[in-house]
Amino acid sequence: MNAAVEMLFSPSLQLRTLHSSTCSFSPRIPFRPAFSFRNLDTCGVSRGGRIVSGSSPATPIRSISSATTAKMGFELNSEEARVPPAIPPPNPPISKFKIALCQLSVTVNKEQNIAHARQVIEAAAGNGAQLILLPEIWNSPYSNDSFPVYAEDIDAGGDASPSTAMLSELSRSLKITIVGGSIPERSGDKLYNACCVFGTDGKLKAKHRKIHLFDIDIPGKMTFQESKTLTAGETPTIVDTDVGRIGIGICYDIRFQELAAIYAARGAHLLCYPGAFNMTTGPLHWELLQRARAADCQLYVATCSPARDCSSSYVAWGHSTLVGPFGEVLATTEHDEATVIAEIDYSLLEQRRKYLPFQRQRRGDLYQLVDVQRLNSKETN
Amino acid sequence: MNAAVEMLFSPSLQLRTLHSSTCSFSPRIPFRPAFSFRNLDTCGVSRGGRIVSGSSPATPIRSISSATTAKMGFELNSEEARVPPAIPPPNPPISKFKIALCQLSVTVNKEQNIAHARQVIEAAAGNGAQLILLPEIWNSPYSNDSFPVYAEDIDAGGDASPSTAMLSELSRSLKITIVGGSIPERSGDKLYNACCVFGTDGKLKAKHRKIHLFDIDIPGKMTFQESKTLTAGETPTIVDTDVGRIGIGICYDIRFQELAAIYAARGAHLLCYPGAFNMTTGPLHWELLQRARAADCQLYVATCSPARDCSSSYVAWGHSTLVGPFGEVLATTEHDEATVIAEIDYSLLEQRRKYLPFQRQRRGDLYQLVDVQRLNSKETN
Repeated sequence: MNAAVEMLFSPSLQLRTLHSSTCSFSPRIPFRPAFSFRNLDTCGVSRGGRIVSGSSPATPIRSISSATTAKMGFELNSEEARVPPAIPPPNPPISKFKIALCQLSVTVNKEQNIAHARQVIEAAAGNGAQLILLPEIWNSPYSNDSFPVYAEDIDAGGDASPSTAMLSELSRSLKITIVGGSIPERSGDKLYNACCVFGTDGKLKAKHRKIHLFDIDIPGKMTFQESKTLTAGETPTIVDTDVGRIGIGICYDIRFQELAAIYAARGAHLLCYPGAFNMTTGPLHWELLQRARAADCQLYVATCSPARDCSSSYVAWGHSTLVGPFGEVLATTEHDEATVIAEIDYSLLEQRRKYLPFQRQRRGDLYQLVDVQRLNSKETN
Repeated sequence: MNAAVEMLFSPSLQLRTLHSSTCSFSPRIPFRPAFSFRNLDTCGVSRGGRIVSGSSPATPIRSISSATTAKMGFELNSEEARVPPAIPPPNPPISKFKIALCQLSVTVNKEQNIAHARQVIEAAAGNGAQLILLPEIWNSPYSNDSFPVYAEDIDAGGDASPSTAMLSELSRSLKITIVGGSIPERSGDKLYNACCVFGTDGKLKAKHRKIHLFDIDIPGKMTFQESKTLTAGETPTIVDTDVGRIGIGICYDIRFQELAAIYAARGAHLLCYPGAFNMTTGPLHWELLQRARAADCQLYVATCSPARDCSSSYVAWGHSTLVGPFGEVLATTEHDEATVIAEIDYSLLEQRRKYLPFQRQRRGDLYQLVDVQRLNSKETN
């Protein structure tokens, strides 16, 4: 990176590594909602939304004339490249703060995993972190055999979910926000890969169930079929916290650019991806995907992996990373257990988007990304 | 890159550097077209398409019940994440061939630029290249002052467009396909940044006019407003050639992931982006964006820049590159004039997509990318 580029980033980051044991779809012409979109609940469903549509979204697509619309100029139809139209990131409750990515060692002993996570979170908060991100599947080995054994009933809470009970207790007592990586969740007769977000009051603000299950097969290198035991989640998850509006994905979810794009269109400041890329996909794509999501969506992307354990059946790549809104790596680590603490500065989001204004240069006359559930929720409000 | 990863790529590439002076749109339930999509003309409009829709696309979005659809399983709705549904890449006429990325030095003398390009293309063809990619704006300095002066009437052809006349002549005589970078085009009272694709018979197979104009402002670093002189193109361009189905973008077009995604959904094997990133955006994003588009779409991406000229008002980054369908850099160069010759092997596309099958793991119940013009063309066929 040359000096000129480095200056652009003005990262003003603090990096510390604590080696712990620490739709419709609406065709562009008929669908012109002028709405307010204030609150997102934990399922990403709007509350208080208001929609004013010039005409029915049932108007057929053939009413679009590209020849006509193109004459409007390429900036005039960008708002329709996102359906419903994109919401700029709101003013966050806080602009600058420290995030901690706790790359935890994971053992076969769940109690020990919970106790260890507690220690690391306390240390990170002691070092000033106001947002803690944990790894994917941090209370259990990552294997289809383990998921049913280590799963917890998050909705029942308390003794039925000691992992999330600990996160709730700490977020309240330490007054921090925790994006709690993920744990196997049991709900009725189903298992999910679930990420819980706790607010500074200790309350569960959101629960994301991995939407895209990790089913891959690279012969001789890496084969895994999460769908053998797990059920896919049903909804994107974006949540307003004391440290900004955060979109959640779990590991394989990061491969689907559409999810990041609809979070960006819902006004996210930050995407958090607990993940456990492996020794094949890690060097191939882990950093690339984080940087691509950040650069394309012009927001912060934070990832957190388990530390590498070469004795486990699934060996994690590690390399938990924070990426800034220009796609620049702000802080990262290797594969050993470590806590990355770095500064997020949301004031850069607006600056970066002003420099490279492609959020308002899209061509809604040529392509539209439909956020099905958000659109659906507007229609039914 | 470790050995295991390297083996995955099995690149079998040849890299030589010749230092020359050389929609609906359709809500997921109502829109279920079972169509054939055989021929793309130069405007990406289908010919011979047939559409069978179970019900009208006018059915309102509220008919979608995510609770219902989610039960179908996450693989069952992937086909609806692209509207119209994605077409797998067709069997290409050729599987393995050499591509040449001719990173040309550009001068203020148009005749000299044309003569020089001719020499470099002939040399590349002599080295076995069957597909030639030229840089963005290779017959003219890259400046708003120059565009009107150097512009040619491509549609009139012949003496009105000596740059494309040369490309047509060479593609026919050398029996190669040329993706002719771009030149300023005059059409009536408008100017475009246009890329011409010539087939092995010398005929103009496609003309892409830059869809997303380069209007950015990074204070003290890089400010450019193409829209001061140029008009944006009106359509994506994908073209069937003797060396596969190729989607075309020009420079800033690469920032818009939607364009790459709709090319992938139209069955592209390869995306070609003539581009002239600068000394600010080049180190930031040039390689990142190429690798991201290739990895997300699982296809080949080729870029070609002018060589760097530090005496010009706009200094190009260089670094013309070929990226494979795992997002891996297969061949690249520095900033000086050079021709990169590398091998493309389309048989890897199917393999990579089998390894990482996310093309069929998308969640059409949660997001849909609408290819407006393709959808529109189906409706009117």
